[in-house]
Amino acid sequence: MGDLQRAFGASLRAVRRARGLSQEQFADVVGVHRTYMGGVERGERNLTLKSVEYLCHQAGVNPLDMLRGPDTPRAA
Amino acid sequence: MGDLQRAFGASLRAVRRARGLSQEQFADVVGVHRTYMGGVERGERNLTLKSVEYLCHQAGVNPLDMLRGPDTPRAA
Repeated sequence: MGDLQRAFGASLRAVRRARGLSQEQFADVVGVHRTYMGGVERGERNLTLKSVEYLCHQAGVNPLDMLRGPDTPRAA
Repeated sequence: MGDLQRAFGASLRAVRRARGLSQEQFADVVGVHRTYMGGVERGERNLTLKSVEYLCHQAGVNPLDMLRGPDTPRAA
C-alpha cells in the first residue's frame, strides 16, 4: 500500500528537475505550499484522486503518466 | 475534475459485470458495504490513492488499468 503515491511523487520530482526548478519554485508554479509539495514528492501523502488531478492540471502533466512512475516511457 | 474517479468506477463496474456479479456480491468479495461500492461505481467518491489500491487488491485487478477506464485495452 502506498505504491501509487510513491510513484506519483517520484514522477512529480522528475518533472520538476527536468524543468530545472527548486521545490519552492515548483510549488509556486503549482500553487501549493512548499512543505506540502515536499511531502507529495516524497510519496508521504495519501492524495485523493481529485488532488492528483488538480496538481497535474496545474503542472501541465498527465495524471495517468504521473501515477505510473518516472521510469516508464511516456506516451507522446 | 473527477475524471479519474469516474474512470475508476466505470472500470470496476465493467470488471464486476464481466464476472457476472451483483453489486452486493461484488461488495462482499471486496469486503466493503454495498452502498459504498455503488458510490464508487457511479464515480461519486473522491477516493484516496490508498483506497484505490485497497479496492484493486481485494478485487485482484491492476490500479493503473482501472484508473485508465473500461474502454482502453489492458496490458496482458
